[in-house]
Amino acid sequence: MSNKTNVLLVGSGGVGTLAAYNLEIGGLASVTSVLRSNHDAVSQNGFTITSLDHGYVKGWKPSTIRNSVPDVGKECLRPFDFIVVTTKNIADVSPTVTETIAPAVTAGHTTIVLLQNGLNIEKPLLVAFPMNPVLSGVSLIGATETSPGVILHDDRDRLIIGAFTNPNLPLSTSITSAQMFVQLYSASEKVSCTYNENVGFVRWRKLVYNACYNSACAITHMDTSRMRILKYPIDDVVRPLMLEIVAIAKAAGHVLPESIVEDMINCDPEDTYFKPSMQQDIEKGNFMEFENIVGEPLREAEKLAVPAPNLKMVYGLLKILQTNIKEAKGLVSFPTGPILLDQF
Amino acid sequence: MSNKTNVLLVGSGGVGTLAAYNLEIGGLASVTSVLRSNHDAVSQNGFTITSLDHGYVKGWKPSTIRNSVPDVGKECLRPFDFIVVTTKNIADVSPTVTETIAPAVTAGHTTIVLLQNGLNIEKPLLVAFPMNPVLSGVSLIGATETSPGVILHDDRDRLIIGAFTNPNLPLSTSITSAQMFVQLYSASEKVSCTYNENVGFVRWRKLVYNACYNSACAITHMDTSRMRILKYPIDDVVRPLMLEIVAIAKAAGHVLPESIVEDMINCDPEDTYFKPSMQQDIEKGNFMEFENIVGEPLREAEKLAVPAPNLKMVYGLLKILQTNIKEAKGLVSFPTGPILLDQF
Repeated sequence: MSNKTNVLLVGSGGVGTLAAYNLEIGGLASVTSVLRSNHDAVSQNGFTITSLDHGYVKGWKPSTIRNSVPDVGKECLRPFDFIVVTTKNIADVSPTVTETIAPAVTAGHTTIVLLQNGLNIEKPLLVAFPMNPVLSGVSLIGATETSPGVILHDDRDRLIIGAFTNPNLPLSTSITSAQMFVQLYSASEKVSCTYNENVGFVRWRKLVYNACYNSACAITHMDTSRMRILKYPIDDVVRPLMLEIVAIAKAAGHVLPESIVEDMINCDPEDTYFKPSMQQDIEKGNFMEFENIVGEPLREAEKLAVPAPNLKMVYGLLKILQTNIKEAKGLVSFPTGPILLDQF
Repeated sequence: MSNKTNVLLVGSGGVGTLAAYNLEIGGLASVTSVLRSNHDAVSQNGFTITSLDHGYVKGWKPSTIRNSVPDVGKECLRPFDFIVVTTKNIADVSPTVTETIAPAVTAGHTTIVLLQNGLNIEKPLLVAFPMNPVLSGVSLIGATETSPGVILHDDRDRLIIGAFTNPNLPLSTSITSAQMFVQLYSASEKVSCTYNENVGFVRWRKLVYNACYNSACAITHMDTSRMRILKYPIDDVVRPLMLEIVAIAKAAGHVLPESIVEDMINCDPEDTYFKPSMQQDIEKGNFMEFENIVGEPLREAEKLAVPAPNLKMVYGLLKILQTNIKEAKGLVSFPTGPILLDQF
């Protein structure tokens, strides 16, 4: 039996595959990847990866591949030390992250690493797995699966790890887990993986981009580059949202630098048309992560009595748009009746 | 030469055709209709109208049909007494209403009747034609052109006429024009056409529906019926917008009844799925009348210092969506460059 750290990876698209590859070439971890849409392709030919950090890799497979999340108890498997979750986090659609990974979690042993966007994503996991450390991963990688098993990695892998507060465990336990994970992930010496104790600060900082550009672009189908060229979408929509996020973060105890708003407005490359993930999702008819990216910051605002009318309106609109996606996927239905066109 | 009142009708879709028909059968007006997309069909076969007010009408033509707005001066035509405009009013796209009708207006003679939605629609006309009365027409008709020249009229024609204030003319001149038009329009004895001196009240009342449902439905592509069934779209988006419109109207001197918000929320029929006109427009790739329906009420709010954050956000989003339509129609373009997909 391997004495390597036993890692389960759930969500093997671009980000997840690069995480699995990087963990394995570091030599300290043995990775089991749960593959869905790309399972057959990878099973036959392995992954083909074209990577800024790792070069060209052909026919690579993680130590183990599976087409479903393992049931550690039933299958009498060695417990996973880490479960790295790189799926989208769609809080309002079942199965949730908690439901998905439950069979693979060993109580009091497995550390859960959430490489996902948004706020309060640890909350349901701490309820379901009260004695397990849960880590925050904020990734700045640019990686996409261009066809099943084929990954293009075109922006450097920079990962910031921290420990979410688990009131049932000594702080040192979670921090030790976080530092262990940083060690595993850094062992390849090809990427940047750092420990940052200030999880809230790191996540709110990323929300300044995500809650605002993601929302504006998902609702309007306009990319961030066109918005910057036209300017008024920034002035009318994006900046007012960002200022609210900064104000809520401050009330929550995370003082972001003054320059953050203009920095985030201008952070995408100049010479390309950039579509944030929520815009891509809605354009493909996929669910959007809007509850964690917009809903949770809004609920923080309400809890802290910070006025956030723009975020509230945008949240309302996104919830309607998400309902359209649910209807298209058959999760919501309406009585049949004639469509009436109002002409005046 | 006919001694009937000489009327030019610009915009012969459902609403315009019913107006032309009703004016002509009243016997007091001779109508020249400007036809665009349906010109050839109507020229050959006339209009086919299935109407709640007028029954089934086949092969009807107005006294004169044209495929462009007449140039009264150049063509030495008898001046038009009334120009009835039933086109969409797209304030941010050329040609505007003013530009369209200019060649047919006789200064100091022609009365311009705007059967159109929104606020301050008379302003550019009063600048261009300072010595002409401009009338407000608020229509509650349901009429649609199902194919070129074929009109389905399924909700009664109720028209409210008033006179916009023209500071260059005695008030009595505009009021006399308005009352004359009501007489012409009522002569058929088939429809309801009333004079209402309180133009502002009538237009703000209709904005409670239009600025809010039109916007919410255009942005989200969800019809008003689904919104009422789900309830949260009303609570999160529609009602907050309506409350702002009522507050702006009040500051502008038009006190709407308390019940207006719930009445407007529930005014569409229960058993059908109702798409407001701006939703239909965006779904067909047509320009939206959002500047007059949302932009002008918002500018009133700013002038009167009434807080309207919801309307402001919705206006910003609609302006972006309108820009997408302009880009699709070639009125706006962006430098070419690769599309970059942000994966995390």
